[in-house]
Amino acid sequence: MPHWTALVAEKKQRQLESIPQEWIVTPPSDSTLDVSAFPETCGLLNAREIEITNTPVNVLLEKLACAAWTAVDVNCLTEIFVDRALVRAAELDDYLKNTGKVVGPLHGLPISLKDLLCIEGLETTIGYVSWIGQYADKNAVLVDVLIECGAVPFVRTNVPQTLAWPESFNNVFGRTTNPYNRSLTSGGSSGGEGALVALKGSPLGVGSDLGGSVRIPSAFCGLYGLRPSYGRVPFYGARGTLEGQDSVLPVFGPMTNSVAGVKVFMKAVVNAKPWLKDSLAVRKKWDEDEYNLVDHGSGKDLCFAIMWDDGVVVPHPPIRRSLEIVKAGLQKAGHNVVDWKPIKHRLLGEITRDIWNAASAEDFMITTSVTGEPIIATMELDDADAAVASFRPQNGGITAYQLWQVQKLRQDIRKEYLDHWEATACETGTGRPVDAIICPAAPFAATPHGKNRYVDYTIVWNALDYPAAVFPVTTVDSTLDGKAPPHAFYDDFDKDIYEMYDPEKFKNAPVCLQLVGRTLEEEAVIRMTEIVDAALLAAK
Amino acid sequence: MPHWTALVAEKKQRQLESIPQEWIVTPPSDSTLDVSAFPETCGLLNAREIEITNTPVNVLLEKLACAAWTAVDVNCLTEIFVDRALVRAAELDDYLKNTGKVVGPLHGLPISLKDLLCIEGLETTIGYVSWIGQYADKNAVLVDVLIECGAVPFVRTNVPQTLAWPESFNNVFGRTTNPYNRSLTSGGSSGGEGALVALKGSPLGVGSDLGGSVRIPSAFCGLYGLRPSYGRVPFYGARGTLEGQDSVLPVFGPMTNSVAGVKVFMKAVVNAKPWLKDSLAVRKKWDEDEYNLVDHGSGKDLCFAIMWDDGVVVPHPPIRRSLEIVKAGLQKAGHNVVDWKPIKHRLLGEITRDIWNAASAEDFMITTSVTGEPIIATMELDDADAAVASFRPQNGGITAYQLWQVQKLRQDIRKEYLDHWEATACETGTGRPVDAIICPAAPFAATPHGKNRYVDYTIVWNALDYPAAVFPVTTVDSTLDGKAPPHAFYDDFDKDIYEMYDPEKFKNAPVCLQLVGRTLEEEAVIRMTEIVDAALLAAK
Repeated sequence: MPHWTALVAEKKQRQLESIPQEWIVTPPSDSTLDVSAFPETCGLLNAREIEITNTPVNVLLEKLACAAWTAVDVNCLTEIFVDRALVRAAELDDYLKNTGKVVGPLHGLPISLKDLLCIEGLETTIGYVSWIGQYADKNAVLVDVLIECGAVPFVRTNVPQTLAWPESFNNVFGRTTNPYNRSLTSGGSSGGEGALVALKGSPLGVGSDLGGSVRIPSAFCGLYGLRPSYGRVPFYGARGTLEGQDSVLPVFGPMTNSVAGVKVFMKAVVNAKPWLKDSLAVRKKWDEDEYNLVDHGSGKDLCFAIMWDDGVVVPHPPIRRSLEIVKAGLQKAGHNVVDWKPIKHRLLGEITRDIWNAASAEDFMITTSVTGEPIIATMELDDADAAVASFRPQNGGITAYQLWQVQKLRQDIRKEYLDHWEATACETGTGRPVDAIICPAAPFAATPHGKNRYVDYTIVWNALDYPAAVFPVTTVDSTLDGKAPPHAFYDDFDKDIYEMYDPEKFKNAPVCLQLVGRTLEEEAVIRMTEIVDAALLAAK
Repeated sequence: MPHWTALVAEKKQRQLESIPQEWIVTPPSDSTLDVSAFPETCGLLNAREIEITNTPVNVLLEKLACAAWTAVDVNCLTEIFVDRALVRAAELDDYLKNTGKVVGPLHGLPISLKDLLCIEGLETTIGYVSWIGQYADKNAVLVDVLIECGAVPFVRTNVPQTLAWPESFNNVFGRTTNPYNRSLTSGGSSGGEGALVALKGSPLGVGSDLGGSVRIPSAFCGLYGLRPSYGRVPFYGARGTLEGQDSVLPVFGPMTNSVAGVKVFMKAVVNAKPWLKDSLAVRKKWDEDEYNLVDHGSGKDLCFAIMWDDGVVVPHPPIRRSLEIVKAGLQKAGHNVVDWKPIKHRLLGEITRDIWNAASAEDFMITTSVTGEPIIATMELDDADAAVASFRPQNGGITAYQLWQVQKLRQDIRKEYLDHWEATACETGTGRPVDAIICPAAPFAATPHGKNRYVDYTIVWNALDYPAAVFPVTTVDSTLDGKAPPHAFYDDFDKDIYEMYDPEKFKNAPVCLQLVGRTLEEEAVIRMTEIVDAALLAAK
């Protein structure tokens, strides 16, 4: 076995060769932090191509596939297979020309995939050096479904080693930065998708979400993203982390520049009957009644609940301001807004980590020991070596009996949370319980590298299996978002997060929020996100 | 803490006192094996009451609640609360009188419940001495749902200690026998329900099924029963075994004397939106399209696959004969019948036991150690003491990491089995994959006590999460079901099962089969069971 660094060098060389030569551009200088406009200014794209990359998914789908990847920062990509994609695009063009019909609802849509969705003949490393050279002999189920729907996968995108970080750095492909401010993280674990889609390098990307990995990079990069319920989108055939864990499950979800794109993706995938290809996919058709909010008063006079903080970490000023913007917009649009009282969020976060950590160290060690690559213990820029040295996995994890006790506690809290939600019927004024919760996706906008240290604003909804959509509201504004006076801190950690805030440091970072619905209510969550989006637009 | 036998004596005394004095009858002599007609002949019931107890659920529901429990063998009961039931029945009568409306779709239906469905103010022991005296402070979710639907719970029924046996014997309530032949078991773990419903002591009972516990007693007692998919019927708030295990989950299902009763129960429960009360209940409405077999050619020219044996244990002659009866009946009704090729059934059984046994010994020991009651290690009549002495739980089970590896293997086999089913489309002649599998519920009819030693004909469908209905076909007939010549045995265990068969020993035992569908396709499974049932009736 060669040294792991030799494996990486060989892989990087192959990756470089997979980029068409004529697309290599000179990157902006290191001092340019905001590179979000670079695709339009680098000279690689003509006016028509720029128009295409700025077109939302639902509009784009009325055209044939003709866009190619435009990203300048290869660090957001892992596998590049534009050659295959162009062959497929040509096939689709021919099909349309010969039959006058589209192949499916995603006909011709270029689509980027997080680096865990196996594609026949390609490697899937999830950032592990040990998995370099492991070529998939079949597609993940979702890849098959997307291709049947007419989509054209063309690149895969970066992740953190193990997938179990909310930023995107690994020993194989390096680090993905935030296109709006390269001193900030693009989030994780679908951080490559976040950066690529924000740069208009892909109209729609597929991320996975075990604890926030679709929503955090969507929020940090200013995108729309959805974390569906377990099994609504097929997961089988992807590489994962903590494989065999049957409790808090990973799910795939779309990341894109419009809520219309989220809907197009979900409707196409669900209508493809994924339960005939993945035994964990839920047999539940796309439900137009649920999309039309039949269980929510047909969408008139909705009652949203705003969760201003989760009782553990108080959000930074830009997040608070974005909640106020949404509240005002919804009220202006005639909807009712109440406050959400979070219960047991701290415990839910702890329990979820206990479940994953039941055997995570063993899982990571067994994988990395093949090549001896170091297990990454921090996402910080500088002291990675020190952190690696200090990483000591738990010895052997816990027993199955201990795991069952934690899982039982989680079931009890899920029930308690459900009852808590149902009990809001008495305070909404609609006769129904709260229709959706609106809350931060994180207590901060995109953080400096290594500082995204609190992810329970997303994890709790994974633990409860509630679908949650991310939508953009504003960007950090140093005038409007000055540092707040100290509040009564919940604890030292809350104080640390408070002290991290500095309007200059977070400059230009997008600010997004989450809309949270009930289990398997994806249709309603999408519709309500459209309603919030329209209210924000109308209130501008 | 008193000695465990003292706790049992006190509990039995309280149980006896809960039986209305005027209902105590002299039981038949021990030499009377078939007691199935005893309720009609014991003199306790008048002609009208006998008529009522012989009425199927759908017809009964057109009348008001007026039947009371009629069982003669108290060993099938655990908790008896007829007084409460009569109060509730009177309330329902009043409601109907005053409003002209029924409370819900199960208005007035007396319903019996397996002894794990907690009811406020009652004990729930699942056969553990250690749980005597533990009174529930709230109803299980399903109990609430059933009461809201108008049903009247009136008794709870016997189970094996730990629930993890396919017969029904425990240290608290003793043993439940088969009403058609008391030398045989009524099965388990819902064996109390099996005996009670077969005796017409209840028109409909609720059992739970982790590995066959609804279907085995239904099959052994000649009933219709359904094992729904995970989460279709709410489970929360019941006591279970192996609590916190999140992988192969227990489900509740109906046991009754007609397939119409199965439908009435399922439709009522699903339409009650159980997902608003149980966070693990699937948000999926009762689907009339699925019931009308829209995905199965609207029910015309179906293609059934018969699994004659599972490749591990060859079924006894009466089971084989029942499969032939069904095949002939379906062909006569115009349906196509092909053979089902089982794959990996042995491995599926082993994996499922590995998952449950990851911590089962620890779970059982921790519970029984409170009182020191012995852990039961056999369901045999005679050598229970010896078996108890020889029971040595595994020491500490396995680690969480080991458990995840088994669970991962199971996910892979679920996918393989799904693909296997889909691939049958080329051999059905309908253009569709096989519509349903018909197979034994066990390789034998009800066995002598302690001899129900092979349950993988039911377990595999739990492991795959396929809904499965049991329906009666015939009874063991010593003339038609003579001993077969020895076949090429799969192994010594298969030979043991072969040698167990003796037409005299199994005399009068009901013979039932299973109809198996796809995950979350309960509506279609019920409709196809109706079709099979009608075909059997028509072919008689």
